[in-house]
Amino acid sequence: MPIRLGPNQYGKAENRVVRIVRDTPRHQIRDLNVSTALRGRFEDAHTTGDQKDVLPTDTQKNTVFAYAKKIGVASIEEFALALADRYLEACPAADGARVEVDEYAWDRIQVDGTGHDHSFVRSGGGVRTTVVNVDGRGADRVAHVVSGIKDLVVLKSTGSEFHGFLKDEYTTLQETTDRILATSLVARWRYDGTSVDWDKAYDSIRALLLQRFAEIHSLALQQTLYGMGTAVLEQHPDVAEIKFSAPNKHHFLSDLSPFGLDNPGEVFFAADRPYGLIEASVVRDEAPDAGNAWHAIPGFC
Amino acid sequence: MPIRLGPNQYGKAENRVVRIVRDTPRHQIRDLNVSTALRGRFEDAHTTGDQKDVLPTDTQKNTVFAYAKKIGVASIEEFALALADRYLEACPAADGARVEVDEYAWDRIQVDGTGHDHSFVRSGGGVRTTVVNVDGRGADRVAHVVSGIKDLVVLKSTGSEFHGFLKDEYTTLQETTDRILATSLVARWRYDGTSVDWDKAYDSIRALLLQRFAEIHSLALQQTLYGMGTAVLEQHPDVAEIKFSAPNKHHFLSDLSPFGLDNPGEVFFAADRPYGLIEASVVRDEAPDAGNAWHAIPGFC
Amino acid sequence: MPIRLGPNQYGKAENRVVRIVRDTPRHQIRDLNVSTALRGRFEDAHTTGDQKDVLPTDTQKNTVFAYAKKIGVASIEEFALALADRYLEACPAADGARVEVDEYAWDRIQVDGTGHDHSFVRSGGGVRTTVVNVDGRGADRVAHVVSGIKDLVVLKSTGSEFHGFLKDEYTTLQETTDRILATSLVARWRYDGTSVDWDKAYDSIRALLLQRFAEIHSLALQQTLYGMGTAVLEQHPDVAEIKFSAPNKHHFLSDLSPFGLDNPGEVFFAADRPYGLIEASVVRDEAPDAGNAWHAIPGFC
Amino acid sequence: MPIRLGPNQYGKAENRVVRIVRDTPRHQIRDLNVSTALRGRFEDAHTTGDQKDVLPTDTQKNTVFAYAKKIGVASIEEFALALADRYLEACPAADGARVEVDEYAWDRIQVDGTGHDHSFVRSGGGVRTTVVNVDGRGADRVAHVVSGIKDLVVLKSTGSEFHGFLKDEYTTLQETTDRILATSLVARWRYDGTSVDWDKAYDSIRALLLQRFAEIHSLALQQTLYGMGTAVLEQHPDVAEIKFSAPNKHHFLSDLSPFGLDNPGEVFFAADRPYGLIEASVVRDEAPDAGNAWHAIPGFC
Repeated sequence: MPIRLGPNQYGKAENRVVRIVRDTPRHQIRDLNVSTALRGRFEDAHTTGDQKDVLPTDTQKNTVFAYAKKIGVASIEEFALALADRYLEACPAADGARVEVDEYAWDRIQVDGTGHDHSFVRSGGGVRTTVVNVDGRGADRVAHVVSGIKDLVVLKSTGSEFHGFLKDEYTTLQETTDRILATSLVARWRYDGTSVDWDKAYDSIRALLLQRFAEIHSLALQQTLYGMGTAVLEQHPDVAEIKFSAPNKHHFLSDLSPFGLDNPGEVFFAADRPYGLIEASVVRDEAPDAGNAWHAIPGFC
Repeated sequence: MPIRLGPNQYGKAENRVVRIVRDTPRHQIRDLNVSTALRGRFEDAHTTGDQKDVLPTDTQKNTVFAYAKKIGVASIEEFALALADRYLEACPAADGARVEVDEYAWDRIQVDGTGHDHSFVRSGGGVRTTVVNVDGRGADRVAHVVSGIKDLVVLKSTGSEFHGFLKDEYTTLQETTDRILATSLVARWRYDGTSVDWDKAYDSIRALLLQRFAEIHSLALQQTLYGMGTAVLEQHPDVAEIKFSAPNKHHFLSDLSPFGLDNPGEVFFAADRPYGLIEASVVRDEAPDAGNAWHAIPGFC
Repeated sequence: MPIRLGPNQYGKAENRVVRIVRDTPRHQIRDLNVSTALRGRFEDAHTTGDQKDVLPTDTQKNTVFAYAKKIGVASIEEFALALADRYLEACPAADGARVEVDEYAWDRIQVDGTGHDHSFVRSGGGVRTTVVNVDGRGADRVAHVVSGIKDLVVLKSTGSEFHGFLKDEYTTLQETTDRILATSLVARWRYDGTSVDWDKAYDSIRALLLQRFAEIHSLALQQTLYGMGTAVLEQHPDVAEIKFSAPNKHHFLSDLSPFGLDNPGEVFFAADRPYGLIEASVVRDEAPDAGNAWHAIPGFC
Repeated sequence: MPIRLGPNQYGKAENRVVRIVRDTPRHQIRDLNVSTALRGRFEDAHTTGDQKDVLPTDTQKNTVFAYAKKIGVASIEEFALALADRYLEACPAADGARVEVDEYAWDRIQVDGTGHDHSFVRSGGGVRTTVVNVDGRGADRVAHVVSGIKDLVVLKSTGSEFHGFLKDEYTTLQETTDRILATSLVARWRYDGTSVDWDKAYDSIRALLLQRFAEIHSLALQQTLYGMGTAVLEQHPDVAEIKFSAPNKHHFLSDLSPFGLDNPGEVFFAADRPYGLIEASVVRDEAPDAGNAWHAIPGFC
């Protein structure tokens, strides 16, 4: 028959699990959003409705919560890898498993200059994320980890230019040597292997991204992203590639001349839509093949 | 050098353009959200900050609005194809262009049983969308059109079962022969070629998707999607493949037994998160190669 | 003590209850979002933490679901009134109860020209809403019903002017005799009494609001709203007053002159923020006192 | 005529103005969302469409941006007061003006342990807000300032009980002496007068709210809010009253018993809807009359 089932996957999205570590009075919190999916030989579920091969999404959800207790959440990467392996063990028809975890950061509330034992305030500064893909089992097992940060809102109030661009009959943009540069960054980097100190690597890469954003005198958002990405690859040999998706959140200089006021980079209108959208990646030539590492990660690739 | 620029693209996202056709007193409205992007040889923009090859996103935006006047919006597919070709003409460094358009539907306001000439009310029933990718120019030009619908919220209050699934030690889900099935459907289909009566095809496929959702006695959301997809491919020879992303919007039967009330499928709690997420595709074996047709379309492939 | 508890209320917000009427094979659906709140003598709960007077929000939630079965949802107004009375019966410390219900509309899916028995597609055209406030019990009982519609997105592509306004040194706006007028309307009307055919009244008022929006040649959104409101009060003697909150969703004429194109009301940019926000009410002089009718309804009053 | 215009106001909502102070290389940023509104004698605008008394919302917007340059943003309260007075000066038909300002916080990006001069990262920890209402001019002028914080997400992983509540036939909730308490707090406090060190007062009240949330052993969210509010009034004589709106963001203990696992307060499901909604106020007995201070502030009063 010329019409058939194509690629498919299924799972439980956005399991909001909060894990409190309370072995001592000084509690720790890991606040997660976990999405799971299985892919493989599920033709019958689609074509005849026979569910005998299907590990239900409800069971996938139960496993997330049970594992949060059983093995805990040493890091979101370890947690996701363990879940992926568990799903492949439990579901013989699955060829691969995908587990995505977002983690929301919390700070301890300060009381008299000290962080409180069990009271927290949600912090900003971006959401940590990971996407783990595992294909196969045992000797055939291949695991990929793509970690990242999203919703990292940054802004430079100067040190950003944009000029010398291509012009055509629809060009009206003025060239500038001083503008606001702002974005809500999404960065995702693929690790080469899974022997990584995940929390340490994340903290280091996050700090490096921020530092380079601050330091680079920008001639375009593309150039800034490229500089941020090369810094990560240069200082982190275990990162094979990094991808960015960065809306150029336009801050338009307000025209105050009708009111007899000049405006040398002081008052801006922060626009919503449209926005520039810059997507770029930086890669290491000798990096191992990505395989399914980027499977189902929204982006441009 | 072992570290280099990888895949990249850039453009202007979410241009909200409204086109009124007012050649007669009976106006027509096309209400669009247009996102554009270019890909190609933009190394200098990233590595040195030289923008000489870059057609700015501001110019891309201007072109959207100018073309809405110059050529109008016969259909979102034709509009997107014309824009993509224009960008490739204006930007020699670009190898490919991607134009995505969402269209919001409006009904005429009824006054004394007649649709008003120039007053409209926004309608529900899903958002029409298209993603056009064009690679190359002239004889080398290859164009792909993936159209679809999103935010199509549908529900069956019976005629849906779920049982016979795989069980493991984390399974607690009860089997059922009668449940609510509800989703907020995203469907995207790839046309084979560009000689299509776009508006007519969209209306027909939308109606067919709804009809099959209603008619199919469901044994799983997977089976429903597969049935919807096969119907589209069988009746539309110009559709090469269709992909679905469908959250299983769980409606849990409310347990009223503590209050001495039975609940035979009458009162449900509509949950937000987590939700099942079913992604599936139906393909035609002899379909031409997809090429860049699905470039940067969020989904599982 | 000079510091004391002030006004307070508590309840369970956004209970998403779906009620299926399946007495015959032709099902009906009422899809609701119910928020409940109690106010009264709850000092101890705040000052000492003693909860003996507090009917928990969890119990309020259970009551919503149980009542959806026990009495059904003849209309959202009747359902809300019954819940409010029930809470006052169950919670002696409460002096008043507030129940807000939003209802999402569904259409039957068309199959071969006929609406399907148990398959539905969510429709647009606004969300129906009601806010019921009941104070007291028995002979002292006073009940108020404020019903309305929200998210009703309407647009006129002509028949709208704006000129002759006050000017100062910060005025740059050009006067116009032809612009797009668009809003996402919220309208709420207070019924005089509770002996109303609720569904019929809603349908009639909704149709009237749309009709007047279409018919009125607008000199300002204020004038349009006033005309819509007076029509409702003139034709519905059981409506005591009506309030509107209407963002002026600006559609700016695109300046295409740099490209040698004129633009006589054809191509617009639909802006997000900022937006005008027009709030107005129309009242009947001899209407009974509003009492707590507008308690905790977001708006300008 | 028995039908007439009732209360009304109009203005420009959500002006997104960013003010950079760049007198030295160490820039400062104030990132604002400003909404303005006028109320008064605008009958003609509604009833006849005559706009002669109306200061357009576009002019109100222009004034926001011009004033950001002219007087700067010493604090959001001072900025709002100046705008309100300006509108009343420019618009004789207005009796009162309302200006609401939200401010988004930014931290300096750390580079080698030092905050960067002109690069910032958006921080979490709540959005500062103020609502200013001014009625009249000159000797008749009355000004009210209600400042606050919103989106302040806080959580206690223990130190929260809930028991001893009222029970009825719809009660199923179990009593507990250890639960997670979490909310996304909105707090708004009314200042007595306008001779306040606004930035200092805000910082102090914010810190105090957090500290008391952490310190109070909670018997109910009501009791926690009351304790937070009394602390603010006790330590800030210039605060006349404070109001809270606090969703009880339920964290349900995951039932792991089917999997042979106990769960002593370690693994939780963070639910979206429904949620408890607790609204409470703490007032100072001898405080001056609120007048229009709370005009059009969403809440329970």
